[in-house]
Amino acid sequence: MSKARVLTGITTTGTPHLGNYVGAIRPAIEASKQEDSESFYFLADFHALIKCHDPEMVHQSSREIAATWLALGLDTDNAVFYRQSDIPEIPELCWLLNCMAAKGLMNRAHAYKAAVAANQEAGEDPDFGVTMGLYSYPVLMAADILMFNADKVPVGKDQIQHVEMARDIAARFNHHYGQHFTLPEAVVDDSVAVLQGLDGRKMSKSYGNTIPLFLPEKKLKKHINKIKTNLLEPGEPKDPDTSTVFQIWQAFATEAQTAEMRQAFADGIAWGEAKKQLFELINGQVAEARERYEALLADPDHIEEVLQKGAVKARAYSQPLLERLREAVGIRAMK
Amino acid sequence: MSKARVLTGITTTGTPHLGNYVGAIRPAIEASKQEDSESFYFLADFHALIKCHDPEMVHQSSREIAATWLALGLDTDNAVFYRQSDIPEIPELCWLLNCMAAKGLMNRAHAYKAAVAANQEAGEDPDFGVTMGLYSYPVLMAADILMFNADKVPVGKDQIQHVEMARDIAARFNHHYGQHFTLPEAVVDDSVAVLQGLDGRKMSKSYGNTIPLFLPEKKLKKHINKIKTNLLEPGEPKDPDTSTVFQIWQAFATEAQTAEMRQAFADGIAWGEAKKQLFELINGQVAEARERYEALLADPDHIEEVLQKGAVKARAYSQPLLERLREAVGIRAMK
Repeated sequence: MSKARVLTGITTTGTPHLGNYVGAIRPAIEASKQEDSESFYFLADFHALIKCHDPEMVHQSSREIAATWLALGLDTDNAVFYRQSDIPEIPELCWLLNCMAAKGLMNRAHAYKAAVAANQEAGEDPDFGVTMGLYSYPVLMAADILMFNADKVPVGKDQIQHVEMARDIAARFNHHYGQHFTLPEAVVDDSVAVLQGLDGRKMSKSYGNTIPLFLPEKKLKKHINKIKTNLLEPGEPKDPDTSTVFQIWQAFATEAQTAEMRQAFADGIAWGEAKKQLFELINGQVAEARERYEALLADPDHIEEVLQKGAVKARAYSQPLLERLREAVGIRAMK
Repeated sequence: MSKARVLTGITTTGTPHLGNYVGAIRPAIEASKQEDSESFYFLADFHALIKCHDPEMVHQSSREIAATWLALGLDTDNAVFYRQSDIPEIPELCWLLNCMAAKGLMNRAHAYKAAVAANQEAGEDPDFGVTMGLYSYPVLMAADILMFNADKVPVGKDQIQHVEMARDIAARFNHHYGQHFTLPEAVVDDSVAVLQGLDGRKMSKSYGNTIPLFLPEKKLKKHINKIKTNLLEPGEPKDPDTSTVFQIWQAFATEAQTAEMRQAFADGIAWGEAKKQLFELINGQVAEARERYEALLADPDHIEEVLQKGAVKARAYSQPLLERLREAVGIRAMK
């Protein structure tokens, strides 16, 4: 039996924070080491262009994110790690899929519907500020997935719909042109922690409440000290289950460490002390990777080299498949 | 001063007919010989996929159309003649433009609006049967034009809007990312004849009233004999200005020949005789090209070779421009 193929897209906007690490990066990197599946990871920089029109930021973010994943030990021998924009077959496949994808399907996409709703509320034209990039994003995502005939796509709940759209488009294409695409499945891991941010809401760039993953030690300490707590004094028992400090602790600690901290809360540990221990726990886990991260950022040529090797591996899949697809739709060479 | 760059797309659906020849192919081929401009001609096979989901037909049509243009003497030394799907930079540029193109612009495209109107009339969902290919077709056309920084795009009246959309998208891109694109201009030649078909309406595949350009001699004669005429007998004077036979004659004849035929109509030429002369006139003009056409169809490897040479010439423009555009939007290599 052939191995299941798992594909993970990494959006290259923003700087990775602890929430990204716990919710997406750490489990994905673990998965890259498993030998019972074929893993594909890609920097989704074509997608980044939808949201970010600042070239320096797009570039900087791609570099930081590539360095982050490599520093954290992504196994690029076992997995295929590439940059989307290095695979010219992807935008071409995107066009082939456009010709099969129903426009009505895009009208139902959550991100587009949210933009329309916001415009209507503001009394604007429904499509105000909506680009064709935002609107056709699900077709590009379908191309990302179908290009490598991925079986499984680990996603957050908000992305399930897009994987279903990719299935729908793939099924239409297969129905019309013959069996070319695997129908992908969304995989949602409910056990993965959603981390709280400094203010107790979900840690998210859009809330401005994040703790970046690879802050220098002093800044990491400072950030952790900013986590919102209540006014209970040292010695007063504290409720771990409503505490962001405890919630983050749990995401990094072993079961035994979690139990200890739960006891410490009951015993009235001071907030300052809890935060100090939290800093030490996290710092201990990221310090080595942070060093590798800094070294990688200082050596972008090396990152580029890794990505180029990844592109070669990826195109060994995408080129022959696209060749078959061109033949299937009728744009093959004359003979 | 640099030469004006002129770009002409050739849709690869259907078999070229006399109307295509007179209205588009003949003037374009004349233009390909002019040395005061740089001409680009391409087989728009990505566009063909929007309308035609029959791979054999797409392929067959590309072959026939390439053979037609070559047989008619397209100057491929002076002009750049290529197949759209051989230029991977085009679909990639299409994505970059998607991220700049307003969705609202597409809502105003004639072809899309016509589809919506037809659906509404039929009581269907407005987007019934509309694919993302049809909807985003103007963005692909913008990529076709902007990829080569064309100054002028000769089009029919129904395509003026698409060139204006390309201008609009180019201007947005330039405004945001710096001056990268020439703003293209639509060129509509009103002097070009719109040929009537067998039934007197505009000659068009959709009316089923065409006379294919390279019919074998006997069939060409048969088709011309089917042109609708009135019941006037030989000897009765006939009105040239309401006659399809005369209208087609005019498109192929010299001024002197046209004046002669006008006199012959006044003198009551028999319809059979007029059609016989029309056949001879057309056949005389296409016979040699038809032979070359048959020879080319029998030698698809040669067509492919010509297209591959064209692709090399075209990519000498598209590759460095796309490189600059990638840099401009921020998806350049790490360094």
